[in-house]
Formats: sequence, C-alpha cells, structure tokens
Amino acid sequence: MIKASSEPYRIERDTFGELKVPSNKYYGAQTVRSTMNFKIGGATERMPIQVIKAFGILKRAAAEVNKDYGLDPKIADAIVKAADEVTEGKLDDHFPLVVWQTGSGTQTNMNVNEVISNRAIEILGGKLGSKDPVHPNDHVNKSQSSNDTFPTAMHIAAAKEVHEVLLPGLQTLHDALEAKAAEFKDIIKIGRTHTQDAVPLSLGQEFGGYVQQVKYSIERVKAAMPRVYELAAGGTAVGTGLNTRIGFAEKVAAKVSALTGLPFVTATNKFEALAAHDALVELSGALNTVACSMMKIANDIRFLGSGPRSGLGELILPENEPGSSIMPGKVNPTQCEAMTMVAAQVMGNHVAVTIGGSNGHFELNVFKPMMIKNVLNSARLLGDASVSFTQNCVVGIQANRERINKLMNESLMLVTALNPHIGYDKAATIAKTAHKEGSTLKATAIKLGYLTEEQFDQWVRPQDMLGPK
Amino acid sequence: MIKASSEPYRIERDTFGELKVPSNKYYGAQTVRSTMNFKIGGATERMPIQVIKAFGILKRAAAEVNKDYGLDPKIADAIVKAADEVTEGKLDDHFPLVVWQTGSGTQTNMNVNEVISNRAIEILGGKLGSKDPVHPNDHVNKSQSSNDTFPTAMHIAAAKEVHEVLLPGLQTLHDALEAKAAEFKDIIKIGRTHTQDAVPLSLGQEFGGYVQQVKYSIERVKAAMPRVYELAAGGTAVGTGLNTRIGFAEKVAAKVSALTGLPFVTATNKFEALAAHDALVELSGALNTVACSMMKIANDIRFLGSGPRSGLGELILPENEPGSSIMPGKVNPTQCEAMTMVAAQVMGNHVAVTIGGSNGHFELNVFKPMMIKNVLNSARLLGDASVSFTQNCVVGIQANRERINKLMNESLMLVTALNPHIGYDKAATIAKTAHKEGSTLKATAIKLGYLTEEQFDQWVRPQDMLGPK
Amino acid sequence: MIKASSEPYRIERDTFGELKVPSNKYYGAQTVRSTMNFKIGGATERMPIQVIKAFGILKRAAAEVNKDYGLDPKIADAIVKAADEVTEGKLDDHFPLVVWQTGSGTQTNMNVNEVISNRAIEILGGKLGSKDPVHPNDHVNKSQSSNDTFPTAMHIAAAKEVHEVLLPGLQTLHDALEAKAAEFKDIIKIGRTHTQDAVPLSLGQEFGGYVQQVKYSIERVKAAMPRVYELAAGGTAVGTGLNTRIGFAEKVAAKVSALTGLPFVTATNKFEALAAHDALVELSGALNTVACSMMKIANDIRFLGSGPRSGLGELILPENEPGSSIMPGKVNPTQCEAMTMVAAQVMGNHVAVTIGGSNGHFELNVFKPMMIKNVLNSARLLGDASVSFTQNCVVGIQANRERINKLMNESLMLVTALNPHIGYDKAATIAKTAHKEGSTLKATAIKLGYLTEEQFDQWVRPQDMLGPK
Amino acid sequence: MIKASSEPYRIERDTFGELKVPSNKYYGAQTVRSTMNFKIGGATERMPIQVIKAFGILKRAAAEVNKDYGLDPKIADAIVKAADEVTEGKLDDHFPLVVWQTGSGTQTNMNVNEVISNRAIEILGGKLGSKDPVHPNDHVNKSQSSNDTFPTAMHIAAAKEVHEVLLPGLQTLHDALEAKAAEFKDIIKIGRTHTQDAVPLSLGQEFGGYVQQVKYSIERVKAAMPRVYELAAGGTAVGTGLNTRIGFAEKVAAKVSALTGLPFVTATNKFEALAAHDALVELSGALNTVACSMMKIANDIRFLGSGPRSGLGELILPENEPGSSIMPGKVNPTQCEAMTMVAAQVMGNHVAVTIGGSNGHFELNVFKPMMIKNVLNSARLLGDASVSFTQNCVVGIQANRERINKLMNESLMLVTALNPHIGYDKAATIAKTAHKEGSTLKATAIKLGYLTEEQFDQWVRPQDMLGPK
Repeated sequence: MIKASSEPYRIERDTFGELKVPSNKYYGAQTVRSTMNFKIGGATERMPIQVIKAFGILKRAAAEVNKDYGLDPKIADAIVKAADEVTEGKLDDHFPLVVWQTGSGTQTNMNVNEVISNRAIEILGGKLGSKDPVHPNDHVNKSQSSNDTFPTAMHIAAAKEVHEVLLPGLQTLHDALEAKAAEFKDIIKIGRTHTQDAVPLSLGQEFGGYVQQVKYSIERVKAAMPRVYELAAGGTAVGTGLNTRIGFAEKVAAKVSALTGLPFVTATNKFEALAAHDALVELSGALNTVACSMMKIANDIRFLGSGPRSGLGELILPENEPGSSIMPGKVNPTQCEAMTMVAAQVMGNHVAVTIGGSNGHFELNVFKPMMIKNVLNSARLLGDASVSFTQNCVVGIQANRERINKLMNESLMLVTALNPHIGYDKAATIAKTAHKEGSTLKATAIKLGYLTEEQFDQWVRPQDMLGPK
Repeated sequence: MIKASSEPYRIERDTFGELKVPSNKYYGAQTVRSTMNFKIGGATERMPIQVIKAFGILKRAAAEVNKDYGLDPKIADAIVKAADEVTEGKLDDHFPLVVWQTGSGTQTNMNVNEVISNRAIEILGGKLGSKDPVHPNDHVNKSQSSNDTFPTAMHIAAAKEVHEVLLPGLQTLHDALEAKAAEFKDIIKIGRTHTQDAVPLSLGQEFGGYVQQVKYSIERVKAAMPRVYELAAGGTAVGTGLNTRIGFAEKVAAKVSALTGLPFVTATNKFEALAAHDALVELSGALNTVACSMMKIANDIRFLGSGPRSGLGELILPENEPGSSIMPGKVNPTQCEAMTMVAAQVMGNHVAVTIGGSNGHFELNVFKPMMIKNVLNSARLLGDASVSFTQNCVVGIQANRERINKLMNESLMLVTALNPHIGYDKAATIAKTAHKEGSTLKATAIKLGYLTEEQFDQWVRPQDMLGPK
Repeated sequence: MIKASSEPYRIERDTFGELKVPSNKYYGAQTVRSTMNFKIGGATERMPIQVIKAFGILKRAAAEVNKDYGLDPKIADAIVKAADEVTEGKLDDHFPLVVWQTGSGTQTNMNVNEVISNRAIEILGGKLGSKDPVHPNDHVNKSQSSNDTFPTAMHIAAAKEVHEVLLPGLQTLHDALEAKAAEFKDIIKIGRTHTQDAVPLSLGQEFGGYVQQVKYSIERVKAAMPRVYELAAGGTAVGTGLNTRIGFAEKVAAKVSALTGLPFVTATNKFEALAAHDALVELSGALNTVACSMMKIANDIRFLGSGPRSGLGELILPENEPGSSIMPGKVNPTQCEAMTMVAAQVMGNHVAVTIGGSNGHFELNVFKPMMIKNVLNSARLLGDASVSFTQNCVVGIQANRERINKLMNESLMLVTALNPHIGYDKAATIAKTAHKEGSTLKATAIKLGYLTEEQFDQWVRPQDMLGPK
Repeated sequence: MIKASSEPYRIERDTFGELKVPSNKYYGAQTVRSTMNFKIGGATERMPIQVIKAFGILKRAAAEVNKDYGLDPKIADAIVKAADEVTEGKLDDHFPLVVWQTGSGTQTNMNVNEVISNRAIEILGGKLGSKDPVHPNDHVNKSQSSNDTFPTAMHIAAAKEVHEVLLPGLQTLHDALEAKAAEFKDIIKIGRTHTQDAVPLSLGQEFGGYVQQVKYSIERVKAAMPRVYELAAGGTAVGTGLNTRIGFAEKVAAKVSALTGLPFVTATNKFEALAAHDALVELSGALNTVACSMMKIANDIRFLGSGPRSGLGELILPENEPGSSIMPGKVNPTQCEAMTMVAAQVMGNHVAVTIGGSNGHFELNVFKPMMIKNVLNSARLLGDASVSFTQNCVVGIQANRERINKLMNESLMLVTALNPHIGYDKAATIAKTAHKEGSTLKATAIKLGYLTEEQFDQWVRPQDMLGPK
C-alpha cells in the first residue's frame, strides 16, 4: 500500500533526535528506536497481533470522539480510515516491536500512533514522517496516554479473544461431551476411586462429570468478564484524566462497545485501572481453573483409552496418525497430550501474570505487555485445543462395551451394595476373602454363610447401584 | 470429659485387626493406624481444625436426616450431641491426624466417625470401642462415604472461613482505606509512573485506587462462592448416591445451610463434585487476585512512607515497635512486610491448589486434604493480615504535607498541562531543558520563548490537573 | 525452669515503652509487642522451631567469639549456657511469635535475644527484665544485627533439615527402590509409552529409572548446598560489618561449623547475603525438582498397582489400612497419595519462595521468615514422606508375575522387533491387522505372508528385547 | 533449493494412508497430517527452531554412527548432507509444526525424518515422497525412536542456548556491573533496609552485591548442566535400546559432543532419560533463580534512579527514548522494565516446566515439546535481556554524587556507630529525638548530654562505617 520510494530510508525524528526509517514502513522514529534498544527474543516474541488490532479499534473510537470535541474532521476521518486498516490486519507488517519493551507498552502505543499518522498523512496526500497534517501525539494520541490506551487495548484484546476463540471452543467441547454422555448413558461400568476399583456408575454419568466441568468453565470465564469490560481510556497518564474532556472516557467506551459488540464500559476507577491489572489476574485465574478441568478430562480419557491390550481399555479413541517412529502400528492419545501440555502452559502463564500483576508501583503497573501476552496465549491455546480435542478425539470416542462389561462384572466393590443388609464389617470380610481366594463375591458370600444366593442376586445388581433409593 | 480409666490403653479393631488406643481418647483403631502409617510433618501439619468442625456440622446434619429416614432416634440424637461437641471445639484433642494421609481424607472422616461414635456410645452409657450401640460406619457414616463427606466438609470449612475471617477482614481494610481517601482528598501530590515523576493527582485519588482494589477483592471472592456452596453430600463413593436415599442429598444441604446460615445447596453434579475440585481452585484463584491487590497496596505504602530522610517520605506510618536490633531509633513498615509475605504465601498456596486440582483421576480427586489446607491458610492469612494491617498501619497513616508539597512543586511533569496549548514537542523541549539546567519549568518556558509568564501561571495549575476539563 | 512468681506479670521495657510480660516467660517487651501487633494465623503459623534452634547455635557461636574479642567471660558463658538450652529445645515455649511479622525476622531475633538474656541473667542470679548484667542488644546481639543473624539462622536451619531429615529420607527411599530393582530384574513386562502398550522391558529396569531419579535427587540437593553453607553473620545491618570486628565473621562461621559438623563458611559477599536469598531459592528449586521425581514415581506405582481387578494390576501394594468408609474391603495406594500431595505442596512452596526471593529491595530482603518457613516445610515433608512411602509401601511391593506375563504376551508392540527384518511399514501392517482382527501377531504375520513361523519365533523374543544387540 | 514442479501437490503416504503434500516442501505425509490435526495457536506457536537445528545435529551423528554399523555409505552421506542443511537453517520453512502436538514430539521427529529423507533422496537423484533410496523411518530414524531422539534434541538445544545466549549474556552483565562497582567504590551513600534509611555503605559495595548475584547466577546455571549433557539417544522407545546396537548410544553422544564442542555423554540411565525430564526442571530451576536475581537488581536500579526530582535520585540512568506519549520530556527505566517482565515470564515458564516434568507416566514423559519450549524461551529471554540491559542501561549509569552526599549526611542511622560507645538504648533516644525535632544527630546528642562534639566527630564517620574494625 505504501508508495514505492527510490530511497531505502527516510528520516524521521522524535524528541531524542533523527533516525532512519525504512521507506516501505509506516512506522516512525520511536518504533525504530525501540527495535534498536530491545533486541530481546526475536520475531517470535512480537507484541501479540490481537493487541495491535485492539489498538486499531481504540484509535478509531478516540478519533471519532475527538471529532465530537472539535478535532478537525478531515484529520479525524483519516485517522479512522487508517485505524480501520490496522484492525483489519492490512498493516500487520508495520508492527515489529517485541513484548519485552517498556512495561507500559508506550512504544507499541507510539508504533500505532506513528503508523496511523503516517498512513493518514498518506491518505491526505502528505509526506510521510512530516507529522503533518496528522501528528502522532497531538492527533492520533489526542486525549490519550500510553498509560490508559495500552490497558484499554489489553482489555479489548482479551475480551475479543475470550469471545471469539475461548468461549466458542469450550462450547464446542461441552456439546460434544454432552452428546457422548447421552450416547453412553446406559453403559454400566466400574467406578474407580484412588485409581482403584470402586462401585459402578454409568459411562454417561462419568462423562456427565466432564460436561459439568466444561459448563462451569464457561461460567467461570464469563464471571470474570465484567471487570475486563472496564476500559481505562480517559484516565490519561495517572488516572486523573488530565488533558481529556469531561465525557471523553464514557464516549470512547461506548464507541468501542459499538465497534466490538461487547459490553465495554468506562472503568469505575481510573487509578485502579492503570496501576493494577487485577482484572487480568482474575481472568487468568479463571483460565487456570479451566486448565485444571482440561487436565482432568484429558487425563481420564487417555487412561480410560489406554491399551490396546495392557491398559484399562474401556474407551476406543480415534486413530489420527502413526503413533511411533519405531513401534509400528502404535496409536497414541495425542489430542489428550496436546491438551494437557496446553493446560500446563496455562498454569505457568498464570503465575507469570500473577507476578506481573502484583508488582505495580504507584500510579502504574509496568508489566503490561507481559501480562497481556500470557492472557491472550492462555485464552487462545485453551480455545484452539478445545476444538482440536473435540474434533479429533471426543466426537470419535467409542465405548468398548465388551471390555467394560467384563471389568464391571468381575469387580469386588459391588459388595458395597450389601452394607445396608449385612453391615460394613461382614461385607468387608466377603470382599477381602474373595480377593485373597480369587473367587467371586457371590460364591464367597454364600460360603461365609452371610446370605443366600437369592439374596445376593436381589441385592447386588449394578443397574440398581447408579443412584439413591 | 472422657471417663478416667485405670488402663492407659483400650483395644479397638478395624477390618485390619486390633490396635491399642489411648484410654483418654475417643478415637479408634483407624485413627491410631493412620498415626502409625503417616509420620509426616509432625504436629504443625495437622488437619486444619476448621475441617474437623465442619465435619461436626455435617455429621449432625446427616444424623438428623437419617433419623427422618428411619435411623433409631436414640442413636441419631446421641450422634447429634457428639457432633455438636466436635463443632464447638470441645473435642479438638481427639483429632491427631496430619494432612499428609490418604488423599480422600478417609482417615479424617473415620477419625470423626470414631470420635463421634465413641462419644455417643459414652453418652448412651455404652462401652468405648464396642461400636455398640453407635457404629462409626453403619450409623455415624450412614448414607455417606469419605468421598462425599470430605469434600462437603471442605466446602463448609472454606465458606465459613471466607465469611468469618476473610470478608470481614477485607471490609475492615476497605473502610479504613476509604476513610483515608476522604481524609486525603485535598492533598495534591506528584504522581509516579514507571517509578518516575509524573503528573499530579490527589493523595485521596491515590488511596481511592486502593479502595477500589479492595472493593473488587471482596466482589471477586463473593463471585467464586456459588460453586463453593455446592455440597457433595449424597454422592457417596463415586457420585451415584449408592446406599443413600432419594432426597438425602438435598435435605443434608438444607440442614447444613440452616446450621451455618450460609446458602449451601446440594451439588448440581455429584460426579464433578467428587472427582474435581475446580470450585476450590476457582476460590483460590480469587484469593490469588486478592493477594496481588494486597502486594500492590502494601508495597506502595511502604515506599511512600520510606525515609525518614532519604526516602519518598510522603506518608508517615505509625511506629509500632523498635525496628532494628542494631540501628537505634529505626522504625520499619513491618505491617507492610507481613502483608506482602502473606501475599507471596497465598500465591504459592494457589499453585499447590492448582496442581492438586488438576490431578484428579476418574471418580475421585485424591489431593483433598492438601487442597483445603492451602485454601483455608490463604483465606485466614489474608483476613488476619488485613485486620492487622488496618489496625496497626492504615488507620494511623498521616500525610507529610510539607514534603508532598515540596515534591509536587518541583516536578517537571506539570509541563504536561501545556500539551494542548503549545504541543507535545515544545513541551518536551521545556522539560528536558529545565532538567538539564536544573531550573524551573516556568523560567525555562519563558526563556525559550514558548509562552508568557501569565500563560504559564494560567495553564500550569496543579489543582486544575486532577480531572478532565 | 523459670522461677515461680507471686505476680502473673512483670514489667519490661523497650525503646517504645513498658509492657507487661508473663512472669513465667523469659521473653521481654519486644516479643510481647510483636504478639500484640501481629495477630495473623494463630498458633499453627509460629516461626518454625528449627529457626529458633538454629538461633541458639548462632548466639552461642557469637558469644564465644565475642569473648575472644573481649566480652566479659562471665556474661559470655551465661549466654552460651542459655543458648544451648534454646538449641536443645528446653525453652520452646518461650518463642510465641508467628512467621507473619517483620520481614527481616527482627522480632524473632529479639525474642531470642530477650530469652537468652533473661535466662542468662537468671543463671547469674540477676533480675528478669533488668537487662543486667546481660543486655539483649548490647551483649546477646553483640556484633550482630537481625539482618545478618536471621539469614544465618535460616541457612543453619535449612542445612540441618536437609542433612537430618531430607537426605536420610531420600537415601532410605533410594536404597529400597534399588533393592526392588534388583529383586525384579528378571521379570519381563510390557512397556508403556503415552500410557499405551509399547515394547517390553524388565520390571527391574523400570524401577531402575526410579532409582536414578532418587539418586539424582540427592545429587541435586547436595549441589545446591555450597551456597547455603555461606553464612551472613558478620555482615551486620547492611553488609558492611559495621560494629563487628575484623575476623568476627570468619570465626563465627567456624564455630557454627564446629557446632553442627556442617561445612559452613562466611559468605563471600555480605551485601548479597542480606539483600538476596538466591541460595534459598536455589535450594527450593532443587526441592521442586525432587518433588517432580516423587510425583512421577508415586504416580507410576499407584497406576501399576491399580485394581485389584480392573486396573493395570502389575504390582501388589501393601495393604495398610481400610481404604473406604463405605466400600468394604477396599485398599488404596494411600502412601502414594500422601507423597503426591507433598509433591504438590513443595511445588507451591517453591513459588512462594521464588516470589519472596525476587522482591528484596536495596540492602535487605524482607521476606525472610516466609521464605525459610517454606523451605523448611518442603525439606521436612519430602524427607518424612520418603521414609513413610518407603516403609509403608515400597519395601512391601510385590510383583504380580502372572498378570505381568499375561499382559506382556498379549502385546502387539512386540512387533517392533521385526523392524530390522521386514521394515517399519510391513511391521505396522501386521500390528494394525492383528489389532483389528483381535488375533495374535504371529498368526497375522504368517497369514500376511511376511515371514515364517520359525522366523517369528526367532525374531520376536521378549527376553532379547531388553537391550541393544 | 527444492525443484520447481508443475503440480502444486505431490502424494505421499504413511501407515494411515495418502495425503497431498505441497510440491515445494520436503516434508511428507505425517507432517501434513499433524498440521491437520493440531490447529492450536498458529504460527507463533511453532516448535522452536533451536529444537529443529538440534535434530539436524543428532540425525547427522546417528547417520555417521549407523554407517559404522553398516548403513549404506551413500545413504548415510546423503543424510549427513541433508541434516547439515537443517542445522544450518537452510530448511527452516519445512518445519511447520506447532508445539501443541503429541507430547513425545513424534511428529516433529517425523517431520525431520521426512525432510531429511526427501532432501537426501533429492541429493541422490530420487523421487520425492518415494522413500527410496532413503526411507524416513528405516534410514534416517535408524536405531532411533522419537522417545529417545526428541529428548536428545531437547538437551542439545537447551545446552546450546545456554552456552550461546544465556551464559554470554550473563557474563556481559556481570562484567559491566563489576566495572561499575569499581567505578563507584569510593562513593559513600546511605543504606536502606526495609526501604528505610539505614547505615551507610559505598555505592561500589551495593553494586558488588549485584555482581555476586550474577556471578552465582552463572555458577548455578553451570551447576545444572552436567545432567543436561546426558543424552537419551540409544534408549529407543522405552529405554532398553531395542533395535540399536551395543555402543550406538555412546558413539552418538561422542559425535554430538564433537559437532557441538559441548561435553555431551550418553545418559547414565535411559529409562530415567525418557520417562522423566528432571534435568530440564533442574535447569529451569536455575533459570528461575537467575530471574529472582535479575528482578532484584533491576528493581533496585529503577528505584535508585527514580526521579528526576521526586524519587531517590541516587543514580542517573541513560535516557534511551521518549518515555511518554503524553508527558513531554519524561524518561523511564525501560530496560529495567523489560528485565523485570522477563523475570516474571521465566518464573511462570518454570511452573509450566515443573508441572510438565511431574506428569510423566511409566516409560515416557509426554510433555516434551511444552517443556523445551519454555526452557529455551527462559534461557533466550534472560540472555538477550541481560545484554540489552547492560548495553542500554548498566554501562551508562552515572552516580548522582551531589544527591547521594546530601542524603547520606542527613541520615539519622549514622547513630548506629555510637552503639559500642554509649549503648543501644541511648543511641536510640538520640535518633528518635532528632527525628521528632527535625534536628541533626550531633546537635541532639550533645543536647542530651550523652557525648561531646569531639566524641561525636570522632565516632560518627561514615567513611569508617564501611567495614568491621
């Protein structure tokens, strides 16, 4: 989009002096300066593109509100147009900065300001780098500070990732597990507590527990969102709103809400919104809880599907790929593995977010880029992994009914049904004797003289053991 | 209370055989067996007494409901009486088990069953250890399993600790900070971002940010409680409710609710309630977020109160004790230190809870005692520390107005107010020049010819910089 | 030991004024003041007694060195005697302070100074609380500061706990596992990767992996110790050694080394030793790695011992106690559960230590009591749990040879032995066909015409699959 | 490099069937299958390129050793050539897989096998996808399994990153801090404990503490390396070395050592090397400790450099970029912020590594890709940030001598020097009185009659307070 130039570089300047900027980039001196000062981690450590796109939304909203307050409509409209291009991903190549920069995200805010101002200048026929007629600070950043815009972009990006990736992913998984719970509702199987044989339940009930975990995962994430919907915009540098106008904060939040379709509002307390990011720690905590649920579900499924001959073997998991480079014919629960790795990552990310969130000082928390990187990563990984796990594993799970029946019928823990009839101590004697002698519960119970065959058959019926009486 | 005996021991038995039990204890063979098998950590690692007391509530509730379903009223009433003594703390010495036992808490459930049955036997004039007329399993544990009672006790204990210690503690802190915010509302001070001088705000505004953090801390904890109010009782061993009666779960929850005054309900899904403890991970996540808030607030206060001569010195913190064993006259922000240590502990506890919560298998999570120990510890420490911090620090904080004024008036960042008038670039030149030359903003601005003295005085007024225009 | 008094209280004073001290306690005003100002967590949150005992060692060492430098021998000897009583645990009741106090541990240092001074005064026939002839600051704390004594006590306590509890515990576990590895060396079993059937190994080899993990656990802990052996004593308040004598630091370290039999030395850099506790973070990191090893081993053992009828069932674990309050005859891998709970706790403790360790400021880290509490807790729990796990589980593990043989012989992964003979692709076809048709590898291989029966018998021999050729 | 084709796709097959592969890629069916099955996280979540390059080294080493054992030299040499291209980064575009795949890294191992086999086929003039004459499994993966190659690549990659990025970075920082410590050795300043004024030290001593922390950081990382140098290669699928040759393991390790110049050896116990990744948890623990050191140092420097007018102001930090988009002339300690964010990230990464490391089962840990991703990320970020922090901050730090002197001379804590002369209690009275009355120590001391002016001048000399006497 940017006009071809005969020179590889143009000169731009900031308050520190002049710098060469590549001619084919819209960014300016402060962006270049940051690339020079923060050579940390390389390309894979770039500021998440979701933050950049969220900035596009915010800068558009601010320009529109500034127009209401008197900003030259020609300038405002050009900013809006350029900001839209940022949001649409048309200018992704113009955001080279890494996460590991200033902790307020100032350099990314300036990167956005520079790109939008230069692109707006271009739209208006001006000269790149001239800051005329669209100045990155005075116009694009008007009534704003990095300190309020970056947290605003953090919240917009987090909320969008939650709504566009995480919640749909969890819902997909929920629905697939729910369908399986229904499909498996009549399959009676042995329960396992302490990883040891226990009293029976239905496979549908077992999956029903997973369904509930995912259902609550969704609720937990949603419960954390109200405070994420609060936007810092309008707080400017320290929370007072200096150099903004009365009403600016509320209007920007309303614009962002309209642009995103999400219920953003202006933050109740701007000092808190700049100096602390408890709202993201809270959201990360919800993601951490989701990760625990995922770890449990994926672990269960891989163990229940273990085998094919020497494991528990109750579930038959879809075979998606060759499992081993050396063991021919091996199939592995790889989707479970991806999911559990994601869960571990999310738990680690959460600690990083927690540490960052706890270390704000005075009017500003300066762990912002690190925090949002981790929150977005967690939301994305959990959402994507939920879909992958669903499509490539859950929907294809089959019950190995033959195996399930065999294990259930051999179980000693069916003895529990005798408690109300003969008491715990006698029931224990039956189970322990049968275990020692390798015989069945029924034979042992009769031999011990605790009950008759008829009584056993009447009292020990797995199908009657699935609920209260 | 227990009758004196001429013998130091009596013999009790469980399904594994006979064991000597101290005559002056109500517990029985399984408790003794646990003390033999789990010599881990010693007395400081005992099962939190809150869990024991919660069990008292549960066992009473279960006995009453069992009576409705036909349990001999004489037995039920004796159980109720003994259970009340557990809840009231009269029998604390009879619960010697440590947290590091079976992961289902079975041994603590049996400890409770044994103590209540023996005490009830005693009440009814029977012989300790006879299990007659009150059997620990058949009567005290009737319609119950460790697998549903222990998580029920976990939730009761956590909810009570939250309501009795944590939330009142946070409210105390909130109110004290709010009072300080009001007291300090007219004190204008320099803001600090990146720990560097920034534009001004009022000290009341600064404290207002803390007030908001504590207000949201309370909201966050409350938002996690609905799932903590769900009780597993009635799920028995694997979630099916085997050997319970239809309605038992609901009635027990209602009784517990009546006994505690908290809105407990029966768990929506008993499989989830036994196999996962996401609700406690979620609550721990809320406590973790509270810890972040506390770390921020306590850190700020100690830095703002640093000095007395070489620090920031804006706050005067109460002097509570000699601060140094070698430096005479030294006073330290010790309450801030206790609070930040608590915050770090809570963050660590949260990771332990997370790891435990993620590692359930099949129908049971077996990290129960460890999880509840950490959740209770976090709630208690945060609650107690909030009160201590409030009473011994916050309420006595004074503003060092002289120092605050001096710093504010010297600040270069007041230049920000000039942005709308002369633009960012010129304002920057003024600030950087003044900094380099050690002069004032006004002198520099005039010298540079960017504005007149009158304009400066009109535009740069700290009291006008506390809000949008 | 303390003399009976007709008054319940005596009056003591510190630089803040007078306070009533219980007559039957040796501590003084600063201790009482701390109990008033830090009501956080209650009795279970007391400063670990190991820290108090370590202080006893340090105070004795300091008194002896001070005597060399001119301290009145009568005073010095009385301090030594009183300090020994602290170390021997005779005065445990005189240390009521909690962890959640000042972050330098000053109040515990003063508690020790007060107890020793009063006890020494008593020994010398003086009046408790008179500070004469033994002053808590001027004599007991001579050439010391809380800032150097508390970290010294931290290191002494940590090193002793490591040597007295942790390393012996790990060695016990190591030896028991090694004996099992030898016992099981000829039992060939199916391997499991991805929890799925894989090529065979011997049960001895499997246990050999655990042996290696514990061996390296011991090495890791030892590798962290050199920096723990560095003592801060002699650094006084900020690391300069103000008010100490040249040589004091080295002599105190030598005395402590002699008293403990551990190779303590004076810290290379006292500024680092007071301001950072990286050495404890490092040790905690070693404990965290040990916890990972323990989690793996205990998890494996419980899964390999799962059943008795519906699990993997390759190991028979000792039955130590009734496993269920509702399921008669159930036996659970409770030692594995205690161990995995301990592992989770240690991982959580490590995060608390990390956060504390990272948050020092300037010349002092003020998360000292919290850090040492967690390190000691981790060391103790791992050590105790290792012994408990060994004695109550590992030594009694039996191999279920029948079951192991059955699973191994049915395995499809023996097909891997065919790779070098017929190639991966054909081997895969055999395995997948046998799996689909529920038949044996041999029958399928022959049916597919890939090899002869003789070739199969020659190539697929589990006993030949346990090592390279 | 790859030959142009008229078709956009070619057909390749694995044991699951045929798939279309882009004509311009060397990878084959299993790689494509993985991209279809694991749409998790997108391009930023790719397997770290360091792992791919480490695989290049390993595959070359294995081919050379296989040649010794009889692999057709023509095939072996082609593999060597192709593997070198992988190591040199010439084929980076052919490794599209993400971290979130199978937990053994099998798909990345196969990706490498496929790319090398196809590239070798090409070198030998064969047809891409024909697996002839170079088969990905039978030749490139000969005597190998994902289960032993992936952990080998993990260790190679980690060791190289440590040696090439982390240790040089730490050394750079160490040297710069050491130079500053020397430069500042004569500047006497006030010490700060509990963030409060304390006794003096030299600025060189203060920096000396940082030097020691970085020195020990280097030692800690090195101390963790011996176990990282152990390579799993030769263990094949479960640790037995099935289908490898006696001596293969040792020879491969020797080749890798020769190729890298690092002291790699074959793992002592291959079962441990596949089933556990304690060595990486240990290394991550060392990185976590380094992160604590970095957090402390960077925090100190930003606080000591806070101001310019309302902070501590003892250090003047280099001004590298405009600090604020709204506050003109503001300069922030941005390098400190990047460093502290990195530190928080490393601590979070460590928890992810810990959780992954603890969750291995039986013969294989399946959190491999996640673990190595985090370890590499931590090493890289710490190394890069150390260099950036050094070059853009540490080397340019200046002492603000005027400010330092002023603060030091006003300090009340110089009173500590009086302890040996007049005792702690009187010294405390002087300090507290001077504080209350806002006067100097000397005036107060004389007024209180505790000493003469001459005595004060003789006893209270900051330059004499920097060490023991």
